[in-house]
Amino acid sequence: MWREIQGCNNWKGLLDPMDSHLRKEIIRYGEFAQSCYDSFDYDPHSKYCGTCKYQPSHFFDKINMLKKGYEMKRYLYATSNINLPNFFQKSKMSNVWSQHANWMGYVAVATDPEEIKRLGRRDIVVAWRGTVTYLEWIHDLQDILHPAHFRDDPNIKIETGFFDMYTKKENNCHYASFSAREQILAEINRLIEKYQGEELSITITGHSLGAALALLSAYDIAGKSITKIIPISVFSFAGPRVGNLKFKERCEELGIKVLRVINVHDKVPTVPGISYAHVGAELALDHHRSPFLKPNSDLGCAHNLEAHLHLVDGYHGKVRAFRSATGRDVALVNKDSSFLKEEYGVPPFWWQDENKGMVRTSDGQWVLPERPVIEAHPPDTAHHFQQVLKLARARLNLP
Amino acid sequence: MWREIQGCNNWKGLLDPMDSHLRKEIIRYGEFAQSCYDSFDYDPHSKYCGTCKYQPSHFFDKINMLKKGYEMKRYLYATSNINLPNFFQKSKMSNVWSQHANWMGYVAVATDPEEIKRLGRRDIVVAWRGTVTYLEWIHDLQDILHPAHFRDDPNIKIETGFFDMYTKKENNCHYASFSAREQILAEINRLIEKYQGEELSITITGHSLGAALALLSAYDIAGKSITKIIPISVFSFAGPRVGNLKFKERCEELGIKVLRVINVHDKVPTVPGISYAHVGAELALDHHRSPFLKPNSDLGCAHNLEAHLHLVDGYHGKVRAFRSATGRDVALVNKDSSFLKEEYGVPPFWWQDENKGMVRTSDGQWVLPERPVIEAHPPDTAHHFQQVLKLARARLNLP
Repeated sequence: MWREIQGCNNWKGLLDPMDSHLRKEIIRYGEFAQSCYDSFDYDPHSKYCGTCKYQPSHFFDKINMLKKGYEMKRYLYATSNINLPNFFQKSKMSNVWSQHANWMGYVAVATDPEEIKRLGRRDIVVAWRGTVTYLEWIHDLQDILHPAHFRDDPNIKIETGFFDMYTKKENNCHYASFSAREQILAEINRLIEKYQGEELSITITGHSLGAALALLSAYDIAGKSITKIIPISVFSFAGPRVGNLKFKERCEELGIKVLRVINVHDKVPTVPGISYAHVGAELALDHHRSPFLKPNSDLGCAHNLEAHLHLVDGYHGKVRAFRSATGRDVALVNKDSSFLKEEYGVPPFWWQDENKGMVRTSDGQWVLPERPVIEAHPPDTAHHFQQVLKLARARLNLP
Repeated sequence: MWREIQGCNNWKGLLDPMDSHLRKEIIRYGEFAQSCYDSFDYDPHSKYCGTCKYQPSHFFDKINMLKKGYEMKRYLYATSNINLPNFFQKSKMSNVWSQHANWMGYVAVATDPEEIKRLGRRDIVVAWRGTVTYLEWIHDLQDILHPAHFRDDPNIKIETGFFDMYTKKENNCHYASFSAREQILAEINRLIEKYQGEELSITITGHSLGAALALLSAYDIAGKSITKIIPISVFSFAGPRVGNLKFKERCEELGIKVLRVINVHDKVPTVPGISYAHVGAELALDHHRSPFLKPNSDLGCAHNLEAHLHLVDGYHGKVRAFRSATGRDVALVNKDSSFLKEEYGVPPFWWQDENKGMVRTSDGQWVLPERPVIEAHPPDTAHHFQQVLKLARARLNLP
């Protein structure tokens, strides 16, 4: 399966005729992206607002994803001190876990021998969180291209907001003291060292703004000597454009496989503007084709990740009849939307914690319990990041 | 304690100086009323919308009220086919538990020997559900007085909407085939027969529209020969006016003790209009006196039952300093409101079910589980209701 995805130069039309194995793979990676929403603390009344609700070691258990056979390796954070104010979640409390950081996703690695055998290699997955429903951040996207000076060519440019989110850090904050870029490059280096001699793959997935970060980080990683022989793929859901034509061409030169799953009614893939180029093959879905979904829903619905996964599961090209390729539960669509037709009897926005996480103590008082402190960054982060830069410099014969 | 409440002819000023025992008693009965909200299914996407989420036998356990020492005896229903359209909750589903009924509360009885000893008698409690936040029903209250023809005097009149809610039934519906009136009178008769020879009391409690039903049912019950020697009390929270001056006078003649707990900023106790008279002693609270509450909140906040209980717990008359009489948790205020100041870090509207009641089946599908059928009415309902009427007729020498 993995080789099939990797080996395909043009994903267009890949789902015609329907290939249920490929659908399953797209959904599998989409669920990694979705897990970043399902585990995120959005509650401004929680002092943990903006972080992941679960400890890394419990993550896949809490999110019902143990069966995927992956192990959590590291959480990724970005600083919110950048020019995308409507994207970050801020607590209203004074005593908070961090004033400057938001949890942005994670790096995990396949550890189940069966899964490694099935894939034909050990897969490293990176999942980036995006935005579930709020689209205000689109308006904050400025049509300003920033040189992507990870490498030599100054003509390769990307959207400033994405560049900032990926590269900015905040020394005053424990969690944002390394940029998202430093965190991910360090972790990839560490894992490559750890699994030296094994066949590896890197698969990066994200939805919305997370899709932009997925492509950006794939581009960054692919240019590093450390990953020369490791195939890098991106599963992008409802992603905006990221960079200019030069950026797109460079991504192609680097051999990054990108599948862009979009809904034709979603506006996000049309931003920021025409100075930008999409990268990769497009799998265009149309929510009007699903008999389960309200045809005239709002833009938030059209952008919803669970709805995309539902359409991947059962989209039949020209045929209107909907048949599920994987038996995926349609109720999942309404987890964080009101997109399902009411006749299916699934409550809208049903994914919620009991009592918003309030628990009753032994003396009968209701409180938001303290959570264990999550390690900000492994102590070897700086070392591994420097290692990546050193190898890159060596390759380019720079001092 | 019970005797103190019963023996007091004028409740006014009863909480000055602060009497923590009395506060506890008011809160205790207020919590019975609150439990009707906490257990109610408001979800229009559930086919059980408009009913109680719990089986009668599990009710006090589920709602954390086992310690009160009461046993659930019967659920009360009213038909929604009356002229108060904004009060009832209707499911959007087609296959629903009932097209015509809403769960309106319950009758329970003290069974814990310690509690019976403390009270000095076996207490029967009736709790009526009202409305948590939506005040649309106020506008539906017509200033039309209806003769309360439970008894001989045609000059005793009550608001038509309340009268209808209490007396109307719907033969097509299992749950509304007896009126709320028939249900409660039958149950009171049954319990009086069952506990013959014991000292009993009947305490009726409710909030908002539930407070109106509490007074109305107390008036109805008190006029029946069966209850001649049983003290009847009403704990009314944020209740509207119910009937005319004659109604009020008749309630006083019948010896019903009514404590009306209100917040001076709440509009509901000022409706329906001046043709109506309040019954009983007023305990006026002022949410501006609590340092925990947002002073300029909306009318829904001012009307909120949990906020009333919070103010009963810590209202100090002229003193602004807030001290809790019972150690009641202020976090409870935000169960179904956004009334607590944000600095306390309690999420607004935090009382919610995990995943809106959706559960994952063994094959991984998410569903709203089926609930066991709740008995509509005990088979002896008609018998007991006829018994009450017979005794009443006998007392009035009617044929």
